[in-house]
Amino acid sequence: MKTLNLDLAEKSYPIYIGQGLLSQGELLTKHINGKQVMIVTNTTVAPLYLEQVKSLLGEGDHQISQVILSDGEQYKTLDTVNLIFDALLENRFDRSCTLIALGGGVVGDMTGFAAASYQRGVNFIQIPTTLLSQVDSSVGGKTGVNHALGKNMIGAFHQPKCVVIDVDTLDTLDDRQYSAGMAEVIKYALLGNLDFLHYLQKNINELMARDKSMMIELVYQSCEDKANIVAQDELEVGKRALLNLGHTFGHAIENTLGYGNYLHGEAISVGMLMAVKLSQFEGYLSVDEVDQVQDLLEKSNLPISISGKIIASDFMAAMSVDKKVIDGNIRLILLKKLGDAFICNDYQDKLLNRVINDFCQ
Amino acid sequence: MKTLNLDLAEKSYPIYIGQGLLSQGELLTKHINGKQVMIVTNTTVAPLYLEQVKSLLGEGDHQISQVILSDGEQYKTLDTVNLIFDALLENRFDRSCTLIALGGGVVGDMTGFAAASYQRGVNFIQIPTTLLSQVDSSVGGKTGVNHALGKNMIGAFHQPKCVVIDVDTLDTLDDRQYSAGMAEVIKYALLGNLDFLHYLQKNINELMARDKSMMIELVYQSCEDKANIVAQDELEVGKRALLNLGHTFGHAIENTLGYGNYLHGEAISVGMLMAVKLSQFEGYLSVDEVDQVQDLLEKSNLPISISGKIIASDFMAAMSVDKKVIDGNIRLILLKKLGDAFICNDYQDKLLNRVINDFCQ
Repeated sequence: MKTLNLDLAEKSYPIYIGQGLLSQGELLTKHINGKQVMIVTNTTVAPLYLEQVKSLLGEGDHQISQVILSDGEQYKTLDTVNLIFDALLENRFDRSCTLIALGGGVVGDMTGFAAASYQRGVNFIQIPTTLLSQVDSSVGGKTGVNHALGKNMIGAFHQPKCVVIDVDTLDTLDDRQYSAGMAEVIKYALLGNLDFLHYLQKNINELMARDKSMMIELVYQSCEDKANIVAQDELEVGKRALLNLGHTFGHAIENTLGYGNYLHGEAISVGMLMAVKLSQFEGYLSVDEVDQVQDLLEKSNLPISISGKIIASDFMAAMSVDKKVIDGNIRLILLKKLGDAFICNDYQDKLLNRVINDFCQ
Repeated sequence: MKTLNLDLAEKSYPIYIGQGLLSQGELLTKHINGKQVMIVTNTTVAPLYLEQVKSLLGEGDHQISQVILSDGEQYKTLDTVNLIFDALLENRFDRSCTLIALGGGVVGDMTGFAAASYQRGVNFIQIPTTLLSQVDSSVGGKTGVNHALGKNMIGAFHQPKCVVIDVDTLDTLDDRQYSAGMAEVIKYALLGNLDFLHYLQKNINELMARDKSMMIELVYQSCEDKANIVAQDELEVGKRALLNLGHTFGHAIENTLGYGNYLHGEAISVGMLMAVKLSQFEGYLSVDEVDQVQDLLEKSNLPISISGKIIASDFMAAMSVDKKVIDGNIRLILLKKLGDAFICNDYQDKLLNRVINDFCQ
């Protein structure tokens, strides 16, 4: 097992990464103060790991309850979070309780927001079971839900007490979900880690075959890159925005096509390629570098174009309600070089329109 | 105008208290960074003060939008907060926007929670227009909504950028609402300020006649008492719990009778008397002291008994879902002496039952 510490003063917490961690109860129990534990999971993950996690906690020592949500980004809503509040109140959970998010990013984001808001804040633990949530959403304390008019528009910064990443759970992940996670892995490489990009390019076939020892390294490197950025800028007033590479484009794709059509990571794959193309049009990247990115995404079985009809003006409208908009200006994350992202406010509108028109057909 | 500073390091903010403040635009504008301003108010307050506040801001300098909510505690729900999110997104409000809560405690609590959660946190300003919100809920950063199973169960700590208290707005407050505010004023005196209690006892007739110069003193003293406690314990891990004197009982009354029957301050009046009675049964207070408290509440035209049938066991059940419950134990705020409250975990259950039975008939 490898342990990474996310350094946030009194809010610091460990991220445990390894195999067989869902057999090690003390990783969880040492971070649980009160007696009441609410496990939040979904209909896909519950049959696989819910009983295992419950048995780890010891029924005698804890009052364990559970909420099993529907699976899918389209359920990441305030109404679904309210189901968690219902369960907490029906079981008389008090401020000393702990919520455990067992599942992918959607479960983690909603459980975290419920923990942030229940009685104005209770403890929670992340047990991410998808590659995407292991390398991205479980780390850093961003929680929240979607609104019909925009993705992740309602939420809170609320850090977990620990993150337990058992890469064995990736065994049960379907190929499409696995590829979606690779999109966020590739993001870390593109935005700030050229060595990691070369490693991914060299080993993409073994990584797609899910070589287990490589999995631990892959997740560790991704979490380390993210933890370093979050430790410098927890509330995203500056550098943390770099983690949104491809996300303003990607959110617009999800929002325009409707949640549930694309997996989040799939939309981010196309979104990153759009950001990379704009970086090329702006003169930062060469055509060859764009091709390298496209090649890596394709070898990860990720989409590189929008499958579905989007009108360019609708796409632009969806982009303008993103959280990266400040006083009407859309801030974008572009690449100066491969492995070197920056926050760009002064791109040319006509070049942005060209990228959107290219992708929106 | 008097200015009080709530000292919370980088989250510190001023509380302006005086007459005619809703004619002084710079009190607001110096705390607004971005261009977008959303005024949240209700159907009662909008006809009285909405246009005045809008004209203060200057339509040319700001993009001003508004949400007018239904008036009443029964509307303090997640669904109503969602109306604020709808308005923010429909008007494309970004992270640099400012929300202004114009109204009583319900408007302030919901606007604050919307500000805490929109895009994971935006700025907000409190303009409380009721006595209760001026002396209590607008100060200290507690925000949130009710759930069918418990009061204020969903929320966040989110501090405003400033609080503008214009006591002239009390001119339009009906007598019942004014008395409800007096309940929270009396609370500060009972829990920690014996001099203030004597002042209230001596001047209750003038105060009920709303002598304007006395109003400013009354609000200032209440806010100062609250600010001192909040500055020591923002997140209520200790001393701040004293501010809940009468609230565990009061919330149970509101919850059992249904929101909208009692005003919050009315329920707190009865709740404080229940806490005072338990303090007497426990041997801390004399019968004469209980009578003094009852007399002051009566002279403030506040209820001293529950008007409506509550079954004692229902009352007990409602108490046990309060936020002051830790690992199954209901913590209560009792009085050692008048003006000296403490957090009590070891009261006798039979004495608590006796109080509940006395009040539940």
